[in-house]
Amino acid sequence: MLALYCGDERQVFLKELPRPEPKSGEVLIRVGLAGICGTDLHILQGYHGFQGVMGHEFVGVVAGPQSSSWLGQRVVGEINVSCGRCDLCRRGLPRHCRIRQVIGLKNRDGVFASYLTLPAANLVAVPSQVEDEAAVFTEPLAAAMAVMEAVSLAGKSPALVVGDGNLGLLIAWAMARSGIEVHLAGHHGAHLALAQPYGVTTFLEKDLPPGDYEVIVEASGSRSGLDLALARIRPRGTVVMKSTYADRYPLDPAALVVPEVRLVGSRCGSFGPALRMLARRWIDPRPLIHRRFPLSQGLEALAWAQGPGVLKVLLDCREEG
Amino acid sequence: MLALYCGDERQVFLKELPRPEPKSGEVLIRVGLAGICGTDLHILQGYHGFQGVMGHEFVGVVAGPQSSSWLGQRVVGEINVSCGRCDLCRRGLPRHCRIRQVIGLKNRDGVFASYLTLPAANLVAVPSQVEDEAAVFTEPLAAAMAVMEAVSLAGKSPALVVGDGNLGLLIAWAMARSGIEVHLAGHHGAHLALAQPYGVTTFLEKDLPPGDYEVIVEASGSRSGLDLALARIRPRGTVVMKSTYADRYPLDPAALVVPEVRLVGSRCGSFGPALRMLARRWIDPRPLIHRRFPLSQGLEALAWAQGPGVLKVLLDCREEG
Repeated sequence: MLALYCGDERQVFLKELPRPEPKSGEVLIRVGLAGICGTDLHILQGYHGFQGVMGHEFVGVVAGPQSSSWLGQRVVGEINVSCGRCDLCRRGLPRHCRIRQVIGLKNRDGVFASYLTLPAANLVAVPSQVEDEAAVFTEPLAAAMAVMEAVSLAGKSPALVVGDGNLGLLIAWAMARSGIEVHLAGHHGAHLALAQPYGVTTFLEKDLPPGDYEVIVEASGSRSGLDLALARIRPRGTVVMKSTYADRYPLDPAALVVPEVRLVGSRCGSFGPALRMLARRWIDPRPLIHRRFPLSQGLEALAWAQGPGVLKVLLDCREEG
Repeated sequence: MLALYCGDERQVFLKELPRPEPKSGEVLIRVGLAGICGTDLHILQGYHGFQGVMGHEFVGVVAGPQSSSWLGQRVVGEINVSCGRCDLCRRGLPRHCRIRQVIGLKNRDGVFASYLTLPAANLVAVPSQVEDEAAVFTEPLAAAMAVMEAVSLAGKSPALVVGDGNLGLLIAWAMARSGIEVHLAGHHGAHLALAQPYGVTTFLEKDLPPGDYEVIVEASGSRSGLDLALARIRPRGTVVMKSTYADRYPLDPAALVVPEVRLVGSRCGSFGPALRMLARRWIDPRPLIHRRFPLSQGLEALAWAQGPGVLKVLLDCREEG
């Protein structure tokens, strides 16, 4: 099968690999659509030191084993493969499993391929009314909605989201759907416009009016985004950090200690709420799709995704012919 | 009156100043003992850009006006002077008042002097059984106990405190008194020994056994302390930052985002609980007193306080003769 592979020294290339064999408890999934995420691009800059098949956002169909009750089912999949036995798994934190694998990110092949294997326990069925083009956003939408696990938004209106990329827009949409007033600051008028149908008030960063916020979500993946968040956070407020990036951030300890500010890291989220939002069409992520490439043009797709102002780039991984 | 004064360009000198006049709602306090805090030393390195009479830890006696119901009362004083009218004061966060003054730290003269003025609203009476040598620790003990406002410790045993200076020891004592198991990591065997009577398990930092913690309090005021805290924090755990320092900390965003760690700034605390701990002798801070200088030797005292491994240095501010 064809796969987009990250080798040592971060070279990415298309590679013919044998179709993977599901182990006990696992299924074989034929990948339909896959999404390119900012984290995939960070891998190319050395983040995680990952080697293997790239990618973690996908929707697909279970293709084996023949004995599986999932056979033929359209699915999305939790990206963390956990042991179920370590102290963190037993505390109900399987996404933080001490020996976890993460598809396309850590010690396990990802989804930029015709097939992948996953434990059946990681599968979530996709409701029929959710098109592939929406279902492929389940994982990033779940990550966006994890903001609401990291901080209670009740009574903290308006909240500010910094960053108008895919993640920032998904976060702003999801927060707005929770009923609070959301401000979104970014750099691209065309991206900001996508938030307005959700009742989000949008600003170019340079035009953000004075004032502070009790909750700010940093989703720009840039140093300037965290600068803005820390400059605008109210005393005793919470900055949720959603984005990783390769550089170090020069944190002034007094910027946290004196105003007693909280800086809260947030990564993955639960698929259930995200799929409900998609099935009810309370969030329609399809306007984020910027361009779609066949897997055989995966290198072009990665290059395209790194362009300025590009939103979601999809890979169509269905085998041709 | 004599005062230890920080001028522009961070020169510190003894200065004769007129005795301050209490304004409406204020009292005049004759300072008894005052404590030198790490933050006072940071001011000398340019932190805050403060100019004026230094110092914020004190115990004293109300000396005016004659009409005050506080006259003759032994008191400690909340260091933040707030407006009572801004949005943060009205939200119950007067220590974060938008136009606050802070004695010896921000726009208001401090306590390294024979007298200071404070709003009567800032005063807290010292119970008779609390000696001056203990009462002078009310403010730093309140700051230490603010850790328990910043994070719930219930079920998060053991917790780790990093730093065996005054603040780290007060924090370790107060946390241990709350009934949880406390580990303390530091560099000075003699300091660590002061924590053992409270049932704290102590380690030289280099000997801290492997493992992670759900709560870590950074009280070392050093980059290496925060390095240790972030290396040892459990996924979804909380690092409480108690210390400011002049440098920037090179924060790896992934160190917060991937394990979903919380970094919580914490500054001042409530005097009531601290005075109760002192009055019941559940915490006796007097073993922290390293040396005592008269105010007239304030410069020597500041120099002494900067020595390696020095704990609390007190100034006796009672006018001589």
